[in-house]
Order: sequence, then structure tokens, then C-alpha cells
Amino acid sequence: MTGIGVIGYGYWGPNLARAISEVEGATLCAVADASPAALARAGRRHSGTELLADWRALIASSAVEAVVIATPVHTHFEMALAALQAGKHVLVEKPMTDSPMKAQRLVDEARRRSLVLMVDHTFVYTGAIMTIGEMIASGKIGDLYCYDSTRVNLGILRNDVSVIWDLAVHDFAILDFLMPSRPVAISASAAAFLPDRPDTMAHLSVFYEDGAMAHLNVSWMSPVKIRQTMIGGRQRMIIYDDMQNSEKVKVYDRGVDLAAQEGDIREQRISYRTGEMWAPAIPAKEALVTEIEHFVAAMNHGTPAPSGGESGLRVVEMLTAASRSATLRGHPVELGTLRKAS
Amino acid sequence: MTGIGVIGYGYWGPNLARAISEVEGATLCAVADASPAALARAGRRHSGTELLADWRALIASSAVEAVVIATPVHTHFEMALAALQAGKHVLVEKPMTDSPMKAQRLVDEARRRSLVLMVDHTFVYTGAIMTIGEMIASGKIGDLYCYDSTRVNLGILRNDVSVIWDLAVHDFAILDFLMPSRPVAISASAAAFLPDRPDTMAHLSVFYEDGAMAHLNVSWMSPVKIRQTMIGGRQRMIIYDDMQNSEKVKVYDRGVDLAAQEGDIREQRISYRTGEMWAPAIPAKEALVTEIEHFVAAMNHGTPAPSGGESGLRVVEMLTAASRSATLRGHPVELGTLRKAS
Amino acid sequence: MTGIGVIGYGYWGPNLARAISEVEGATLCAVADASPAALARAGRRHSGTELLADWRALIASSAVEAVVIATPVHTHFEMALAALQAGKHVLVEKPMTDSPMKAQRLVDEARRRSLVLMVDHTFVYTGAIMTIGEMIASGKIGDLYCYDSTRVNLGILRNDVSVIWDLAVHDFAILDFLMPSRPVAISASAAAFLPDRPDTMAHLSVFYEDGAMAHLNVSWMSPVKIRQTMIGGRQRMIIYDDMQNSEKVKVYDRGVDLAAQEGDIREQRISYRTGEMWAPAIPAKEALVTEIEHFVAAMNHGTPAPSGGESGLRVVEMLTAASRSATLRGHPVELGTLRKAS
Amino acid sequence: MTGIGVIGYGYWGPNLARAISEVEGATLCAVADASPAALARAGRRHSGTELLADWRALIASSAVEAVVIATPVHTHFEMALAALQAGKHVLVEKPMTDSPMKAQRLVDEARRRSLVLMVDHTFVYTGAIMTIGEMIASGKIGDLYCYDSTRVNLGILRNDVSVIWDLAVHDFAILDFLMPSRPVAISASAAAFLPDRPDTMAHLSVFYEDGAMAHLNVSWMSPVKIRQTMIGGRQRMIIYDDMQNSEKVKVYDRGVDLAAQEGDIREQRISYRTGEMWAPAIPAKEALVTEIEHFVAAMNHGTPAPSGGESGLRVVEMLTAASRSATLRGHPVELGTLRKAS
Repeated sequence: MTGIGVIGYGYWGPNLARAISEVEGATLCAVADASPAALARAGRRHSGTELLADWRALIASSAVEAVVIATPVHTHFEMALAALQAGKHVLVEKPMTDSPMKAQRLVDEARRRSLVLMVDHTFVYTGAIMTIGEMIASGKIGDLYCYDSTRVNLGILRNDVSVIWDLAVHDFAILDFLMPSRPVAISASAAAFLPDRPDTMAHLSVFYEDGAMAHLNVSWMSPVKIRQTMIGGRQRMIIYDDMQNSEKVKVYDRGVDLAAQEGDIREQRISYRTGEMWAPAIPAKEALVTEIEHFVAAMNHGTPAPSGGESGLRVVEMLTAASRSATLRGHPVELGTLRKAS
Repeated sequence: MTGIGVIGYGYWGPNLARAISEVEGATLCAVADASPAALARAGRRHSGTELLADWRALIASSAVEAVVIATPVHTHFEMALAALQAGKHVLVEKPMTDSPMKAQRLVDEARRRSLVLMVDHTFVYTGAIMTIGEMIASGKIGDLYCYDSTRVNLGILRNDVSVIWDLAVHDFAILDFLMPSRPVAISASAAAFLPDRPDTMAHLSVFYEDGAMAHLNVSWMSPVKIRQTMIGGRQRMIIYDDMQNSEKVKVYDRGVDLAAQEGDIREQRISYRTGEMWAPAIPAKEALVTEIEHFVAAMNHGTPAPSGGESGLRVVEMLTAASRSATLRGHPVELGTLRKAS
Repeated sequence: MTGIGVIGYGYWGPNLARAISEVEGATLCAVADASPAALARAGRRHSGTELLADWRALIASSAVEAVVIATPVHTHFEMALAALQAGKHVLVEKPMTDSPMKAQRLVDEARRRSLVLMVDHTFVYTGAIMTIGEMIASGKIGDLYCYDSTRVNLGILRNDVSVIWDLAVHDFAILDFLMPSRPVAISASAAAFLPDRPDTMAHLSVFYEDGAMAHLNVSWMSPVKIRQTMIGGRQRMIIYDDMQNSEKVKVYDRGVDLAAQEGDIREQRISYRTGEMWAPAIPAKEALVTEIEHFVAAMNHGTPAPSGGESGLRVVEMLTAASRSATLRGHPVELGTLRKAS
Repeated sequence: MTGIGVIGYGYWGPNLARAISEVEGATLCAVADASPAALARAGRRHSGTELLADWRALIASSAVEAVVIATPVHTHFEMALAALQAGKHVLVEKPMTDSPMKAQRLVDEARRRSLVLMVDHTFVYTGAIMTIGEMIASGKIGDLYCYDSTRVNLGILRNDVSVIWDLAVHDFAILDFLMPSRPVAISASAAAFLPDRPDTMAHLSVFYEDGAMAHLNVSWMSPVKIRQTMIGGRQRMIIYDDMQNSEKVKVYDRGVDLAAQEGDIREQRISYRTGEMWAPAIPAKEALVTEIEHFVAAMNHGTPAPSGGESGLRVVEMLTAASRSATLRGHPVELGTLRKAS
């Protein structure tokens, strides 16, 4: 039975705590939060769990083998580093840190100590994305050449972070999970509804080594809520619509076929397929429970999780590059240079 | 009765010819096409119209007061210039020319001779866009701060032009009609499904002088056809979905309100409206007929048309800037410099 | 402060109890349930509330001025009658009783004692139906001539009641609230997916005195969930789609206009309107809270509630008539005779 | 080459004539219409076809082996009977006749003379319905237990026929093609928007020998156009939405499973499946061309067509029974008795 402690019992922490309590082989042994009211809530829901005002006491507790961090992003680095240095496995809420340099430091620390470092990229563990990942791995979609996501709604205009760090982080995590090739550069355009405030809408293009392109449209200023992604493979195309109650994932047997032909590629015969559509049954299992299971499996059996520390680092790199490009009206920012520069 | 001659009776010319024949005060007096089969088709549909193999003969005809050009884009400049120099008014299919320099030359020539020069930006004359334009002019939408269009389908991969010149031209024409501010720069990302072919999908961001941003998503590689545009005003938001059989235009009384407050703008109280939605009745009149009526009114009464030569020039500039930026992975291309440089 | 007691804390009772606790002027003073586990749940959520194993004790409690009954339908009559005879106001879950005769008896008892008798026709208190009711009352919809509802999903095949008593009860309650005319007869067709089980799908037609017609399609055997109602008025038409996240209610300025003309009605000039559509903002207030507020207002001020005992009686009559017609393959059952016969 | 003559070149006749001219092995040898303008139109489109003012002359023509009748329904019987008596094969527009007795007479005449008698039930030959028919025949849908169709729009209020004869005829033809069991009774409810006019909206329930039930909702008074049908089989369910541009037919692997168990059927374990959805590719071939091919095959090879004379008779019977039930507020009308009575 793996003892897990949760730091932060505000908005998201209670969900992680509940998921831990539902996973076989894991036990929620401690919760830390500076707010007495938050601790009282935790106590009512999880009797028998140790309640601590000081996160350092949680890390120091010998019952705690692994630490889950659900606090504001600017605190992630200090807490995660302290936990790793205390020999604890760590799962951090997304984004992992607020800079690639800090993310790299955590990855290095975890590797040196052979500890699990994982990021809470929740979407990666949903039935929809796991199903899409399996279809891509099976080869039935074919090589991916594009990913096009719209993630917009009428949302709270946040003062602390831009729409990129708030919404695009989900797509970057999904991209990191699904795309086989590595991103090489990002071009981003953004605008703020109010002057001197963080950007409220942004368009991000990600260029991949193999020629594939991803694009994210994120906004807090849309009259209707849209969560729709098109994934283009050379064999089939997928549309993933998270606002649907059922049939969230649709696979289209559509596209362009090339008849191999001698000579110039321009002479290739192109034909169009508009075949059947298919919506697979999506497992209903809750994403957070699946995620905690992966965390426990990584600790006990060394099974690498889909959202390990390196994934967290790459996502933070993409967020940083996108934000920088947005200040330059789309001037592309290369991803390799960025990590070295930090 | 204004005599109008049509050059080119291939794919689009027949539609323009028919529209001319339906407009009071206009008469289709001649059609020119190098193909005898095309001329025979024109003759069957329009008895009494002069049929000419040579477009120069059409321009020279004294019965022809105005010339409509519906030929491949690379021929527009030579034909339009010759027609203007012969003292004829001109309506050219979109895009007006294949370079801003040529477009500028036509605009100058028309102005010098006080002739009408118009571009066939058909969408501008649809009931939907005209209705949206009137709502914006009435002030009920408020200042525009964003335009976000998706224009994708599974389309023919063209060898001659990229998806930008094929599809984005429609949105650039609509933007030129609707947006009160001037575009200052464009950042574009694009990719080709097949190597060494024109781009098959592109994302274009247009930055405006007043801080507004427009974005176009155009692609020939989507499993489903989408024609959807969100237009954000500071009072209301519009969603225009051209694939709907009815209720193409929906106006949402939604957005963010600011309570004016003394002191720092960061202290402004923000509130959210999620009020009613309203779908105005859209006039069913055919866009091409409305367009020809504007052409005739411009000739007879000097009424400026929404898609005059200057509009055609600006659209060609935007297409050229977008294409250039796409080769530079989103590096922004300024619009003023471009025109001067050409 | 009106003291209210709730009998039955199973599936629906907790919702009613919570709503009572949220209404100003009302207090949840007692909960009765034969199940100790249910009582324990009630105790955790409502500290200070008296917990009783025996519903008769609740009715006898002097703190209880009003009783809310949320138990299986076959127990409603006995409990409601006892409560009324003890001088308590009563709100009963729908359907009010399992026969019109019993419903009539409750109505008579309440009237004789000048007590409030109300039925939990929850839909009547939703923002959507209240808004529709106001629009009809304002005259902008015009005289109603049809109501057409589809209420289908893949549901649990119940052994105890048919789909008519389970799903059509909602529409009968809405009809009773919205339709100004009185229903005179019902024709129903139904079928069971499994032999010797209650009907799983049914179509019910309700004929009104003034010539209007309502139709309900209810089923537990649909692959997709649909909650859609068309309401036709002589001025405008409404579509109410409860599955939409927003714009649940749409008003269409469409229909048939008659130009009054002398002579034979067959000579009237008919014209068709296909005008604008409008989706009003729907208040987000919870239906159950609104309902309890009506209950309290009826007790304190005598304001008649939209779902009083007579409404409950009429709905039970319609359910009974529909069930009878369904056994006769649509043979119409008159509504007046039924009540007298019971 | 089979010579075919068309009687009636008004609204629908031109479509049939064009389809004949596109089918290999068939030739349009004559067109008859009392209107000189209609004949002139036929002549322009079909050069070399004999044009006749008198339909009797067409039937008498020795070049004509088969007659297609596209005239008002009250003329079908006389023309079809004359054609059969002249030894010609016959294809009649739907509905075949205006009474079951007349339909029976035509069926008898054709059988006695071994001539082909077919009805233009166009929907039966669409790619969508043919695909559904194949799926049912393959067994993958399982035994059918329900069919539920909505066919509504804002339509012209016709003076000559009710909405039942105008719209329900399509569903009756589809039902006759798809349902393996025989209908035994119909219950119908209907209402007229204007007094003393034919019914403008109707709900029809059809009861089948094997317990299956079909229901049709037809109306000319809906603000939106709907063409949607749910077909429930014991293995899978189909939704056919004819208003979709693609994915018109969707097959859901959903339903209720029974675990066979000893003893009482009420003890059977029920489980629910909510599996995948699948939208087959639908052939794009035009329905009328497929229909004419079946007509030619029936004449040349004796292959029975899906919409033979007996099918036409059954559809007329259902229309007649539904109309009669509608005057009786849903009182069920048996189908067997009807035919005998006529």
C-alpha cells in the first residue's frame, strides 16, 4: 500500500485526493494546506488522514512515500524539489513549472535519485485521448500530418496568467502524448481584450520535424463553448469533440490517395476517398483514477507514465516559446535553442 | 440601358452573364471566349448576344460600355488594363491580379480615367454579410476586436495555387468590407500534404492598427466541411455559419462589461453577460445580382461599390503578405512596406 | 418561518430537502424514512433536523406545518390524506396518486380544510417553461394549436410502471400548465420490448376542446437521448430543446398568415412567413427552489401555485386515459367520462 | 432496347423522362401531355422523342412497350388500366391509386396478363434505404421492433389532399420495403390548421402482426425541416437523417440484452449496451435511375421489383386506413377488413 500525501486542498486538490482514495494499492495518508477551512473540509471527506498546516511537515512524514502537489504554479518548483530531495516520488499539477529551466532542474533531480516525477496532464488519461492514442499506435490512422484544435468559451479574464498558460497547456500535453515527431518551432499570435492585461485569445502554430503542423485556437472570448480537435492522418482523419455527450471521437475513412506512378511526383494520380465514419465506444473510467494508477505503477514497477517529467518539461518549453512568439506578432521561436538558453 | 460584355465563359462566367441578364438597366451585349464550345453554350442561353472568339474584339466593340472579366487570374491584368485604356468600366473576378503592383497599376489607370474598377468579391454581396455589415454600422455590435474564420473541407488539391489564394481570398474580401481599422501585418503558417506542391492548409493571423486581430483557418484536408466565422464586438458577438440552411447569422448578447472606475484600469470591475441570442431574417436575394446592381449604380451614378479597385488591391496585398509569411514559418510581414516595395 | 417535514429520503427526497433548506422563510424541521441508512445521510447533511423512522410521527409533530411526500406512488394517497386530516399543507411528488379517484379525494379534502395541496410537477418551475409560459401569456405566440414532444432515451426497463407513467407525466404536467384549452380525449399507441412487461415506448395524442392537438413520443429504447418540444402558435412557433447547454428555447417568427377576404374561407389568401429567430435568456434559478417558494407563498398568502392539487388530478386523469387507450390500440378515451366513472 | 413512353410532363414527369434517358437498355420513345407548352419543353430536352397531346395515342403506339404515368392521382387508375389492357408494362407515380379497390383491380389485371406493374416509391431506391435494407437482410440489426419517423416542415397547405396522402406515403412505402411482418391496424390522429381544410399535421401508429410498432409524424406546420427516422432492431439501432449532407445513416451498437435464464421471464437479467456507432458509406447513385433499372429488369428478366403493384396496393390501403382513423380520433382501423370491404 503506497502512502500518498497531497499538498494543496483548494480547487483541484480535492479531486486528486478523492482519486487517490479510489485506487487500489494507494492510500491518502496526509493532506497539507495553510488554510484551516480547507483542512477541515479534507478531514470531513477523508477520515483517518493526517491534516497538516505545513507542507514541509508532509514531505518530512515517514508515512508519505509520494507527494502530489496541487498548489499555484509559482510554488511547484520549490515544493517538488524539496520532495524529491527528501526521497519522495512526485506528481505535480500542470503546468509543471513556470520556466523550462526549473522544469529541467526537477527532471535532473528525479533522474539522479531514480524517483518518479510525473505531471498531472489529465487529458492524456481520458478515455477519448487514450482511445485515439491506441488507434494511432495501431497504424490505422496513418502518419499524422496535422492537429487542429479549437478550445474557446466565454471565460473569466484572468489577471495572473494568459489564455496560453490557462488553455493551451491542455493541447500541448495532448500533442506531446500523440505526436510521434518532435516540435521544432512555434509561431503564435495573440491579443488582449483589455489593455495591459494578459492575452485573452491566441492562435498557436507548432511546426514538427517531419513536416506535420499543429494549430491551437484558444480564447476566453467566444459566445459559445467549443472543444473540438481534428487530427489528420494519411490513412484516416479523426474529429474529437469533447462537448458531445456521446460519440466524442469520430474516425473518418476519408482523405487523398496517391497512385504510385513512375516519374515526377507531380504526375501522381490523386484520388479522394469519402468512405465510412466510425465512432468507437469510449471507456467511461475517470481520467484522474487512471492517472493515479499510472503513478502507482511507475513507483512500484518502473512502468513509464505517459506524462513523466520530461513530458512536463517539453510542455513548459512550448508554453514559454508560444508566449515569446506572441509578443513578436508570430515571429517563430525555435524550441531547441530555448531550452539551452534558459 | 448599359451594355456589358463578358470575357471568359468557363466555370464562373456563365453565372455572371446570367446575373447581368437579370438586372434591370443592364444588358448582356457580348461574350468572348476562345473555346467554340463555350461560345455555343453562351449562344443557347443568351440569344441575341454577340459571340466573339477574341476578347480584344469585345473590348473594341462600341456597344460594350463595361467589361466583366472571368478568366484565369494571370490574364486579369492585361485584359483589365486594355479595357480601361479603351475607356470601358471593368469588373474583374477575384483575386483582382496576381501581384499588388499590377493591382496598383489598374487602380491608378481607372482613377486617371474616372472609370469604375470593381472586383467580384461575391461574399460581400450575400444577404448574410450585408446584414452583418448593417448591424456593425448601426453600432449594436460595438467596436470589433476579433474575427475568427474556419473555411475547411476535403477539396481538390490544386497544382496552380495554394489554399491561401483559393480560400483565404474570401475572408480577406469580407474583412476588407467589415473591419473599420486597417491591417498592419500578417503572420501565416502553412503546410503541404504532398511535398513540392502548393500548401493545402494554412492559418493566417491579421493584426490591425487598433489592436483587433483576425484569424483564418483554411484547408483542403478536413473530413467535414466547415464555413464558420465568429465576429467579436465589444457589445455583442456574431456567429455566421454558412453551412446552415436557416439561421446562418446568430447574434449573441454576450461578453464582458467594464464598470468605469476611477484610478488604475486594473481595478475596473468586470462583469459577464450571457443574454439572449437572435437570428435575423436574411434577405434571400442572389449575391451576384446585387453585385451587378452595384456595378451599374457605380457607372451611372458614381455610387462607390463595397468592392472597388482599392479593395481588390488590399486583398491582393494581404494574399501576397500571407504567402510570404507562410514561407517564413509565421515571421510577420508588414502590409505597408509590401505595397511600397512592389 | 414555516416548518416543513419530508417523508422519504431515497432518490428524490434529498433534492427536495436541500431546496427547502435554501428557501428563505422555510425550514426543514423533520425527515422521516424507514431506512436507518437514509436517515443517517439526512442527518449528516441537515444538522438540527429531527429524524424519524415513522412517517406518522412526522405528521403528528407540532413543529411540522407542511409535509412534502417523496415516496413510491402507491403510498402517496394514504400519506397525503393523513397529513391533510392532521391539518398540514401537502406537496406530493408526481404523479400525485395512482388513480383519478384518489386524486379527487385529496383535492376535496384539501378544499374542505382550506389547506394547500400541491404536486411536484418540477418542469413547470424550470426557467425554460416559465419563460415559455410568460411568452404565451403575453400573446406574442398567438393561440396555441399544437404541442409536439419527443422524450426518448436508452433507459432502464422498469418492471413497476410503464413508460407512460414514467416519462409522459412530465409532458402532461407541462401541457396542463401551458395549454389554455381543456383536453377532451386521448388516443395512445404503445408497445413493449419484452413480452409481459410494461410498455417501453408509446405515442400519445391529446385532443383539445378548441381543436388544438398535442402529441407525446416517449420511449426507453432510443439510441440517442432527445428532449425536444415544438409548440405551435398562430403568431409564432417555439422549439424547446432541453439537451442544449444554452439557447434551450428558440422562438421562430414563422407560420402561415391569412389575408381576411370576403366570401368562402377557401378563397383566403395564404402567405408564409419565414422571419427571424430569437432565443431569450433563460433564468438560471433552480426549479425546485422556485417550486418550494411557490409552496410557501401558497401557504402564507394563498397565492395559487401553477401545480396545485387540481392540476395533479388532471395529470393523473390523462395518465390513466392514455394507459387505457394504449391497451385498445389507440381507441380514444374521453377525459370527462373518466373522472366521473372513477 | 425497351421503348418507354411517359404520360404527364408537369412537375415530376421530366425527372422520370431524364432518368429513362440515362438507363442503358431503355429509350424514351414518346411523351404525352395535354399542354402544348409542356410538350415543347419535352421536345427541347429529348430530341427524337414522339410528342403526343393524347395519352391514348401514346398507349396505342406500337413503339411503346412500357408506360410511365406521372399525372394527378385521380387519373392513375384509368390510364394504368388502359395501358395494361393494351398489353403494356406500367410504372405509376405514387400513390398508385386513390382507393384500395382500384389498386386491387390493377394488380389483378397485371397478374392476369403477366405484365409488370410497378409504383414509383422513389425513396425505396435511394442509397440510404437500400443500404438499410441490406443491413436488415444481413441480420446485423436483428429483428425489427420499431420504426419512428418525423417528416415535418413549413409546407404549402394543399387544398386537394391531406398531409397524410402527401407526406406519409413516403414512410408507408419505406415501411412496406423494410418491415418483414405485415401491418394489421392503424391508429391516426390529425388536425387542420384551418377549418374545413385537409389535415395539416398527423400522427400515425401502425401495429404489426409480430408486435412491432411503427409511428409517423407528418406535418406542414413545423418551423424547422426534419427528416429523421429511428429504426430499432433487437441487435442494433439505426438513425437515418435525410437532412444531413453526409453520414445520413448511423448504426448504433446499443440496446438491451437478455441473459437467458430458467424460470419466469420476469427474472431475466437485463443488461444495456452502449457500444460503438458506425456510419456506412452510402452509394451516391440517383434513386430514379436505380428505379428505372429495376423496371427494365422486371420487364426483361422477370426480376421482381421492391415496389411492385402489390406494394402499391398495400400503401394505398395504409393511406386509406390512416385517413379513416384520423376522422375517428385514433380509433384503430384494421387493414385486412379494409381491403375486403372495398
